[in-house]
Amino acid sequence: MTVRFGLLGAGRIGKVHAKAVSGDANATLVAVADAFPQAAEAIASAYGCEVRTIEAIEAAKDIDAVVICTPTDTHADLIERFARAGKAIFCEKPIDLDVDRVKDCIKVVEETGAKLMVGFNRRFDPHFMAVRKVIDEGKIGEVEMVTITSRDPGAPPVDYIKRSGGIFRDMTIHDFDMARFLLGEEPISVLATAAVLVDKAIGEAGDYDSVSVILQTASGKQAVISNSRRATYGYDQRIEVHGAKGMAAAENQRPVSIEVANGDGYTRPPLHDFFMTRYTEAYANEIAAFIAAIEKGTKISPSGADGLAALALADAAVQSVKEGKLIRIG
Amino acid sequence: MTVRFGLLGAGRIGKVHAKAVSGDANATLVAVADAFPQAAEAIASAYGCEVRTIEAIEAAKDIDAVVICTPTDTHADLIERFARAGKAIFCEKPIDLDVDRVKDCIKVVEETGAKLMVGFNRRFDPHFMAVRKVIDEGKIGEVEMVTITSRDPGAPPVDYIKRSGGIFRDMTIHDFDMARFLLGEEPISVLATAAVLVDKAIGEAGDYDSVSVILQTASGKQAVISNSRRATYGYDQRIEVHGAKGMAAAENQRPVSIEVANGDGYTRPPLHDFFMTRYTEAYANEIAAFIAAIEKGTKISPSGADGLAALALADAAVQSVKEGKLIRIG
Amino acid sequence: MTVRFGLLGAGRIGKVHAKAVSGDANATLVAVADAFPQAAEAIASAYGCEVRTIEAIEAAKDIDAVVICTPTDTHADLIERFARAGKAIFCEKPIDLDVDRVKDCIKVVEETGAKLMVGFNRRFDPHFMAVRKVIDEGKIGEVEMVTITSRDPGAPPVDYIKRSGGIFRDMTIHDFDMARFLLGEEPISVLATAAVLVDKAIGEAGDYDSVSVILQTASGKQAVISNSRRATYGYDQRIEVHGAKGMAAAENQRPVSIEVANGDGYTRPPLHDFFMTRYTEAYANEIAAFIAAIEKGTKISPSGADGLAALALADAAVQSVKEGKLIRIG
Amino acid sequence: MTVRFGLLGAGRIGKVHAKAVSGDANATLVAVADAFPQAAEAIASAYGCEVRTIEAIEAAKDIDAVVICTPTDTHADLIERFARAGKAIFCEKPIDLDVDRVKDCIKVVEETGAKLMVGFNRRFDPHFMAVRKVIDEGKIGEVEMVTITSRDPGAPPVDYIKRSGGIFRDMTIHDFDMARFLLGEEPISVLATAAVLVDKAIGEAGDYDSVSVILQTASGKQAVISNSRRATYGYDQRIEVHGAKGMAAAENQRPVSIEVANGDGYTRPPLHDFFMTRYTEAYANEIAAFIAAIEKGTKISPSGADGLAALALADAAVQSVKEGKLIRIG
Repeated sequence: MTVRFGLLGAGRIGKVHAKAVSGDANATLVAVADAFPQAAEAIASAYGCEVRTIEAIEAAKDIDAVVICTPTDTHADLIERFARAGKAIFCEKPIDLDVDRVKDCIKVVEETGAKLMVGFNRRFDPHFMAVRKVIDEGKIGEVEMVTITSRDPGAPPVDYIKRSGGIFRDMTIHDFDMARFLLGEEPISVLATAAVLVDKAIGEAGDYDSVSVILQTASGKQAVISNSRRATYGYDQRIEVHGAKGMAAAENQRPVSIEVANGDGYTRPPLHDFFMTRYTEAYANEIAAFIAAIEKGTKISPSGADGLAALALADAAVQSVKEGKLIRIG
Repeated sequence: MTVRFGLLGAGRIGKVHAKAVSGDANATLVAVADAFPQAAEAIASAYGCEVRTIEAIEAAKDIDAVVICTPTDTHADLIERFARAGKAIFCEKPIDLDVDRVKDCIKVVEETGAKLMVGFNRRFDPHFMAVRKVIDEGKIGEVEMVTITSRDPGAPPVDYIKRSGGIFRDMTIHDFDMARFLLGEEPISVLATAAVLVDKAIGEAGDYDSVSVILQTASGKQAVISNSRRATYGYDQRIEVHGAKGMAAAENQRPVSIEVANGDGYTRPPLHDFFMTRYTEAYANEIAAFIAAIEKGTKISPSGADGLAALALADAAVQSVKEGKLIRIG
Repeated sequence: MTVRFGLLGAGRIGKVHAKAVSGDANATLVAVADAFPQAAEAIASAYGCEVRTIEAIEAAKDIDAVVICTPTDTHADLIERFARAGKAIFCEKPIDLDVDRVKDCIKVVEETGAKLMVGFNRRFDPHFMAVRKVIDEGKIGEVEMVTITSRDPGAPPVDYIKRSGGIFRDMTIHDFDMARFLLGEEPISVLATAAVLVDKAIGEAGDYDSVSVILQTASGKQAVISNSRRATYGYDQRIEVHGAKGMAAAENQRPVSIEVANGDGYTRPPLHDFFMTRYTEAYANEIAAFIAAIEKGTKISPSGADGLAALALADAAVQSVKEGKLIRIG
Repeated sequence: MTVRFGLLGAGRIGKVHAKAVSGDANATLVAVADAFPQAAEAIASAYGCEVRTIEAIEAAKDIDAVVICTPTDTHADLIERFARAGKAIFCEKPIDLDVDRVKDCIKVVEETGAKLMVGFNRRFDPHFMAVRKVIDEGKIGEVEMVTITSRDPGAPPVDYIKRSGGIFRDMTIHDFDMARFLLGEEPISVLATAAVLVDKAIGEAGDYDSVSVILQTASGKQAVISNSRRATYGYDQRIEVHGAKGMAAAENQRPVSIEVANGDGYTRPPLHDFFMTRYTEAYANEIAAFIAAIEKGTKISPSGADGLAALALADAAVQSVKEGKLIRIG
């Protein structure tokens, strides 16, 4: 079976998914839609697909699945429309910035029986997957403490910050998902601290740029997350899992692995400076997993419920900072 | 000038300090006291010094300074006695497990004008010192986020745990001091989580074995501490400082730095399995710094106030766990 | 301009090049030829090109360039035929195992003015390219000593060994090319040692499996090569360049960069176990460079002369082992 | 039993051994001799021993063993004298620069039954010892290929070079010993290349500063040695052993193991810049091994025969460079 795709949104991340779908032997990109005709046409011409309207894709008989890469505030509506249209749906995170809206959306997905995958791409990074595999194989015993360090090369424009839902819902949300992925048990409490250390304008926009979070599960397992909107040495993405029998860690990735030595010491190049080069394989792997799940009819993960769970942790973190106390989940 | 020493306590750590004092060209070990005559005699014979009573050392004209390595509950009393006797004092941490007792003790030290150094040996580890130097040289800019990972190879006996004051006052206290050393600004709030994941007996003794802590300073700088009473791969001691212009980190230490490769991969030996082999240089360096400060009449650091500050953070961490909220300091 | 390709040979390496050509925006794969129709058809169907005979490709007006991936003993003949047919030629190494045959072939290439690139893919590995760039930027000063470690995961079948021309012409030849690439000066002498340590059958076939080589240039620069047909820990491919002002090295590559620690130590996974996964990017980059050179009419490198120079070093190494002496080149 | 020592030579390396002897619980430093009275007195006062003449030490009843750290051209004579005087002898390498003189000296040692240890300190480096242990435990199978990289931070003065016997006898000799230590089989042939790349004055003095050597044993095992008189990044000392079942390597050592990251990349400090700080533990360990062997009456290693074997390899390397051919040993 070849899964026939429609792509909604032809921006930066849309291009990444267009390439992944086109390069997959079990999928074909049939159509693309975008509010900017030129963006849609660029993808159409590069990958040999049609430009259509969202409505046309919704009604199309020759399309089995859609990839939603439109602006965040359209996600929930589009998920509901395409769930009702009987399409399998891959949607970039987040479903919505509002938990209640997400819950409503997931309800529609459940009622329609649609397949929905949420784009927590880091679960598909080969290095993080290898850590998860080490855990599954029992090599480090029961997981006890997870440490996630996640720092961006630089802060996004303040305009973006304002629309982002804040650092916990925009940036830490990936780490909340990764913590859940690695803990193997639901966090039941959140402690968070936040500050503006990188850029005052971020503070003026009502957000933070440097945050620390502790999650804890019912059995006492802990995850610590450290985020900064700036890292001069590149895109810093590390995970470490400490267990009863050992420890597993995924190191940072850099474009070339050379080392130059002189009187100043031994120097390796900086890390990747962009999430799209850092997570190239993850983006391809997640689409491949989505396609495989559709083909084989297997369970899709991460699901809408995963998207909701991460958002709930983000909301709890916001509240913990405001109230200076531990927030219980659920 | 040669600084003439009396050693109080001839146990495990007393031996380490006896060796450091004896090996220092500017110091001489004159006498040792211990409740167990055999222990005192072993040191006396190994380093060519006398066995005396504590009272005799207190009254001695030929002794300028003492190193206190006796049980914790004797520290504050001995500091006061030797402060009044006009000796310079090096005391193993902690001064006492009770903040008020520590305050009273420091008051006596101040009134007598005695020199007091508290044994936070990690400040003298060459690798941690090198990180501090990198900060001082401005190479990573203003410090923003400190990460301290500190895990013991194995839990101490429950009997020890019961007398220890609990993990925050016994183990994390080193990390509280290190956080203050690296942040360069006083923490004003503490958030902590704690659990029993390693050994139920520790929980039955009223303590925890796995804890996570977030400290924050007035300007928003954050320090995250992760502790476990068990690490199968050895004595895990890492620090990392993230600043506005870069990052500095001290890696773990291992006894031999070889690597063996085969079909299972590339394997390096485990870390040191004991704090005394891990911190050999730190123990020697701290005594050398104490001797140098006496000789040159310079300020002693870490001081009694440093001991007090770390203990206050430990108390706040205990309270944060109990009350599930952020605890403000001072 | 789109460069239109014919592919000669649809085996393992042919597939790699078919994918690279098809994925390049400036090229198109028009036709494939192979003695086994099924192999050719598999590529034709996967990449949407035609199956043709070699003669048809030779005569085709709609083909600008060919990639030769046929057995080694056909390379020189095919290069001459396609040079005369006016096609640009990318040929897998070696041109031939016989230096005189290679010289004749290059003469034809020169007479016809054909463009010829020889497939020394390692020059296009991003990590090795980065080392070359460090040299070019003067960061390590004048190159003095090059060290190349090159070990295969396992020995090829003895049948292959018999047809291979021997380890120096089959395996070390890549390192001879890399040494020339890094030294930046022609080697004028060769010293070599060889032994059978891995598999007696290799010795019975008249070849070696473990060799060490020293090359020296006129100014005294040295390159040391260490080869083994077996490395239990994977495909070991390292280069190091020591210069007057510093040193640059490219580390080994492994599929995932995680580390697992326990009582046995810290273990990273083995290296890639196959040259095609290790050099995936290099294969894509070399075809891209070939296409770019055709498009832009720029000089092609590595050239036929580079193929000849590496083969001459291999011949000299064989002679050095036999005669137990230093062999001068040229 | 306490082994009573006389020290011959109070220079740089004499001080190192004086400290090692004094710090060993099973030894005592009784006397020191040096042509410069001030040098001898400095050691005498630092370690509480007497200054005596060489003759007095030779005749002394209260001295069991001597450490010879005098200039090289006095070694053989002193060994013979002290062998006849019935003392155990530790002598810095080399015994002499002339193979025949070494043979005569060893003959005297054998006739007198004296114990003689030659100062190949690197055998006692904890990291290199750990590699040897990995081999002995069979973890990497039969040794096949040894790689030794040995580069000095900077060239010694030309005056020293002139008296040194040349780079092979002065510097590479350590690597010849290390190769024998690791191969576990005697080299039977030597191939060497040499050049002047660092300092023309070295060439004018008739020596080289950059050399590459291949040793081979009867069974075909190979050792490759790379030497330079200059390494801007510090004292570069690496060994790697490739075997049938795996590989073992000892990494370089550096004074502090920190890493600093910024926009230029991740930088670790340079290596040790001096052999005495790099090999501090090795110097202490070799004297401890000498003392233990005397105490327990066990075999001493490395012996005079080891000194001779390394020198013979150095001579062969000189000859190989001159004659451009493989030189057979023995």
